[in-house]
Amino acid sequence: MTKNEADDKIFKALSSPMRRDLLDALRDNPQTTGELCAHFADLNRCTVMQHLGVLEAAGLVVARRIGRQRWNYLNAIPIKRIHDRWIGAYAAEAVNLLDRMKTDLEGEPAETGRPTVS
Amino acid sequence: MTKNEADDKIFKALSSPMRRDLLDALRDNPQTTGELCAHFADLNRCTVMQHLGVLEAAGLVVARRIGRQRWNYLNAIPIKRIHDRWIGAYAAEAVNLLDRMKTDLEGEPAETGRPTVS
Repeated sequence: MTKNEADDKIFKALSSPMRRDLLDALRDNPQTTGELCAHFADLNRCTVMQHLGVLEAAGLVVARRIGRQRWNYLNAIPIKRIHDRWIGAYAAEAVNLLDRMKTDLEGEPAETGRPTVS
Repeated sequence: MTKNEADDKIFKALSSPMRRDLLDALRDNPQTTGELCAHFADLNRCTVMQHLGVLEAAGLVVARRIGRQRWNYLNAIPIKRIHDRWIGAYAAEAVNLLDRMKTDLEGEPAETGRPTVS
């Protein structure tokens, strides 16, 4: 798989709101597939597992089987590499400052919190 | 536009290798549309402008007209917010360390450089 193909998979995986919600749910702690299905109770188990499969194929989720349970972990490295590709260490401080200024001027909270999952 | 719709636009814009190459070309300096077309000489001007339009609609490129020239700037804030959504200040150092370890163990250069544009 070339770097472009790998990146295609990452951005296509992230282009679904449902899959972004799944990553939000895994951000603070790994979860079993059963826990994720309970968390997204309005979706059937098959749909949740399909989305997890896309995230896993893109390298955004890593799964580990322990006993009868499948634990799903967020893999943050592809996300970090997106950041480093277009921002990098040199510019990160300037972008942070700019983002804080934008937020202050617009009077909006920074969009860094976990969005509400319906 | 809801936050989900805005994010959909961002990730769909990033899911094209050509548009990622355009952002790479803008990473270090803003460029005029003419300069970008010269840089991607294997594409016709219309195609380059269409891709720029998608990036602009997603907020990843900001354009400013000065005289007869249209200058295109990379807007790094959406990229920073992707990072903050799933990594955040608390975990950033740990992820940096993990990425360096992975790179050292695999003997690969970190994938942070600008990819070659054919």
